[in-house]
Amino acid sequence: MRLPAQSSSRLIVPCGFRFAAAAAGLKKGSGLDLALVEAPGGASAAAVFTSNRVVAAPLEVGREHLGRSRGRVGAVIVNSGNANCATRSGRAVCEKICRAVAARIGLPAREVFPSSTGVIGVELPVERILRALPELLARRGSSRSGVLRFARAIMTTDTRPKLAAARFRCGGKRATLLGIAKGAGMIAPRLRLSGHRRDAGATGSGHATMLVYLFTDAAAAPAALGRALRAACAQTFNRISVDGDTSTNDTVMLAASGAAGARMASGADKRRFRDALETVCRSLARQIVADGEGVERVVELRVEGARSESEAEQVARAVASSPLVKTAWAGADPNWGRILAAVGNAGVPVDPRRVDIFLGRQQVCRRGRAAPFHERRAHRELSQAQFGVRVRLGRGRAATTFWTCDLTAEYVRVNAHYRS
Amino acid sequence: MRLPAQSSSRLIVPCGFRFAAAAAGLKKGSGLDLALVEAPGGASAAAVFTSNRVVAAPLEVGREHLGRSRGRVGAVIVNSGNANCATRSGRAVCEKICRAVAARIGLPAREVFPSSTGVIGVELPVERILRALPELLARRGSSRSGVLRFARAIMTTDTRPKLAAARFRCGGKRATLLGIAKGAGMIAPRLRLSGHRRDAGATGSGHATMLVYLFTDAAAAPAALGRALRAACAQTFNRISVDGDTSTNDTVMLAASGAAGARMASGADKRRFRDALETVCRSLARQIVADGEGVERVVELRVEGARSESEAEQVARAVASSPLVKTAWAGADPNWGRILAAVGNAGVPVDPRRVDIFLGRQQVCRRGRAAPFHERRAHRELSQAQFGVRVRLGRGRAATTFWTCDLTAEYVRVNAHYRS
Repeated sequence: MRLPAQSSSRLIVPCGFRFAAAAAGLKKGSGLDLALVEAPGGASAAAVFTSNRVVAAPLEVGREHLGRSRGRVGAVIVNSGNANCATRSGRAVCEKICRAVAARIGLPAREVFPSSTGVIGVELPVERILRALPELLARRGSSRSGVLRFARAIMTTDTRPKLAAARFRCGGKRATLLGIAKGAGMIAPRLRLSGHRRDAGATGSGHATMLVYLFTDAAAAPAALGRALRAACAQTFNRISVDGDTSTNDTVMLAASGAAGARMASGADKRRFRDALETVCRSLARQIVADGEGVERVVELRVEGARSESEAEQVARAVASSPLVKTAWAGADPNWGRILAAVGNAGVPVDPRRVDIFLGRQQVCRRGRAAPFHERRAHRELSQAQFGVRVRLGRGRAATTFWTCDLTAEYVRVNAHYRS
Repeated sequence: MRLPAQSSSRLIVPCGFRFAAAAAGLKKGSGLDLALVEAPGGASAAAVFTSNRVVAAPLEVGREHLGRSRGRVGAVIVNSGNANCATRSGRAVCEKICRAVAARIGLPAREVFPSSTGVIGVELPVERILRALPELLARRGSSRSGVLRFARAIMTTDTRPKLAAARFRCGGKRATLLGIAKGAGMIAPRLRLSGHRRDAGATGSGHATMLVYLFTDAAAAPAALGRALRAACAQTFNRISVDGDTSTNDTVMLAASGAAGARMASGADKRRFRDALETVCRSLARQIVADGEGVERVVELRVEGARSESEAEQVARAVASSPLVKTAWAGADPNWGRILAAVGNAGVPVDPRRVDIFLGRQQVCRRGRAAPFHERRAHRELSQAQFGVRVRLGRGRAATTFWTCDLTAEYVRVNAHYRS
C-alpha cells in the first residue's frame, strides 16, 4: 500500500561532492549512523531551520558557521541515533566534531555544517563519533553506492532512503541537482523562511526530524541559493505533515559546488534552477509523507477558495492534524463530517454554508450539508495508497496543496515504544 | 487501568425534575438512544455551546429557544446515534421534535431544549423519534434508575454513564445539584463563554461530542445561572482534551427548578452554589477524560510560570494535542523531550533555557536540558492509570491545570471503524 520510492535511476551524482557513511555505534543495532559529504573544492551554501522555539545545538552551530563563513561549506557531517538536543554538552560536542572533521580535511571549522537526528535529552557520545571519523573519511567517494550509503546513514524510523535528482541547463552547460532526505515522524516542518535571523536560543529536543541536503554542481552565490531555497521550501516541505509535530532539528541545506562550470547568468538559468529545485524538493517531501510512521495512505489535500494562501494553509494544517480525520482515512471511511468539523476548528472565520468537500472524485458535502454520493465507491477510492481530498471555503481565490497521511495503530506502536 | 467512575452513591436526584429514556432505533443494536428530562413546574436555565464555526442544528434551536423563553425550560430532549449535523433537514426536524414534545407535555415549544449526538451528515430519522415519544413520556419518573437510564441513553462511544452530584446550603435550606454527561471522543471542548451571542450560522457535523446537563432544585435567575455556568466551564470542561478535536455539538446546560424552596439570597449562598457547580463539573470533566476512547492513562497537566492563564492554557493544549507526547504516554515512556518540543511549538515565545519539566515526582528537564532522574521509577509512575506532568515556563506567575490522556492503538481502532 505504499507509494513507490523515487527510483534509483534518478540518482545522478553532481560533480564536486564526495559522500561517505560509517557505523559509529550511536544507533541500536550496528547500522550506519554517521554520514559525511565533502566538497573538495568548496561550495557556496544556504540553509533554513525549524521554527520551533526549541532549537537543537547543531542547528545553532550550523547557522553560525554559515554566517561566519559567509555561506561557504567544505563538509557536512550528520549523525543519526541522537539529536544532540536538550543536552548539557550540546554546543561543545557539536563544535568539537566540526573541528575534528575540519582538521582532518584541512578546512576552517566554520566551513563544516553539522546535523543530528535521533533520541533527545541524552548526551551525544562524542568519542564514538571521533573514533569513527578516520574510517568515515577514508570512504569518501562520488559513486552512487556512496550516496546511497549516506542516505541510509541519516535514517531513523525511515524504512527506505529518500533521493531525488534533476538535470537542468545552466549557462549553456548541463548541471545536476541531487537531493537526499530523511524523515518519517515528528514531521510537520514549518521552516523559518525570513532569512538568516536569530531563532530562539538554547538547546532543544526532538526525535525523528526532517533533514534535507541538496547538492548542485552549478555555481551560485549563497544569497541566490538562499532565495531559491526559501521559495522552494515554502511550496514543498512547509506543505507536508505526518503528525503535526514540528521537530526541533528540521534542517534543509543547499550547496552549490560550481564544478560543472555552469554559472547562472540569465534569468532563464535561474528559472530552470528554481524549477529543478522545486521538483526535487516536492519529490522528497512526498517521499517523506509516503514513508511516514505507520502510514498506509497518502492524501493530497487541496484547500481552495481562501482569502489568502496562508489562510488556506491554516485550514489544511487543521484538517491534516485532526486525529479523527486521520483515523477515518486509516479506515478508508468517507467520513467527511470530521473534515468539516476540522475546518470549523481551524481558527478561520469560515461560513459552513459555503463549504464544499470532495473525497476522491465525488462531492460529499455541498454548502455545508450532505451531498448524495456513492459511499462504496468512495470507500474504494479511499482504500488506495493515495487519494485526493478537496475543500472549498467560498471565501476568496487563494488555494494551497498540502500532503498528509492517515493515522494508524502502527504509528502508535512505533511511537509508544521508541525508547522504553 | 481505568479511573473508578463516580460512585452511584453520589447520585442524588434534585426535586422538580423527572427523567426518562427509550429506544427509538437510532443506534446500531437496540440500546437506549432517546432521553428526556422534564421540569413539571418549569425551570430557569442557561447554556453554553461549542466555539467550532460549524454548529449543529439542535444547538442553534436550543440557543434560540432559551432566548425566546427568556431562560425558561420545561423539557430537555436528547437523542444519541445521530448528531443532526450538516443535514438538509437539520433545523426543521429538530423544531418538529421540540413541537411534538411540547404538545404532549403542554408547553410552548420554546421551552423545549434539544440536543443530538452521534453520526453526522445523515438525515435524522425523525419519524422514529416521534414514534418513540409516547413510550418515552410514559416513563417519566424521579427515581435513581430513571436518571441512570437517561445517562445511558445519551452515550455514544462512552463505556459507562457519567454522573456527579453535590449538596449545598442555600437560603437556609438544603439544595441539590446533579450533573449528567456524555463524551469520549472528539473531546476538546472550547465552549464559547462570552454570553448568548450569535455563533457562526449553518448546520454542522461532529461525531462523539460532549453533552452535559446540570440540574439543581435551588432557585436562581437565568442570568445568575449563566454567570455561574460560564465561570465553572472555564475551569473544568474548557480544561480537558482527549483528542484535540472540538465537536460541533458540545453543549452544557444548567437548569434550576427552585423546587427545594431554596432561593440564593446572600453572597454566601451564591459562593456555595458556585463551589458545588465547579465540583460537579470538575468530576464530570475528569470522568470524560478517563473514559476517553482507548484511554489507558489520565494525565493531570500543570503549566506554571506563564504570563497569563490563557498563555498557560495555550501551552497545555499544545502538549495535550501532540501525537508524539500522547503515544509516549501510552508506552509509559518518560520521553520528556517530546513535551519540550511541544512546548516549543505552542506559539508562545518561550525561552527553552527557562523551561523545567517534571514527570510524576521527578524533575526530568532543568532549564531546557536533561536533568538526571531515575528512569525506571519514572516508567513505573507513568504506568499508573493516572499521573501528573508539570511544566514551568519561567515567564510569569500564571498557571493552569489541564486534564488529558494518552493516545493508544485502541483509539485508532475505535475511530477507524466507527462508520464503515
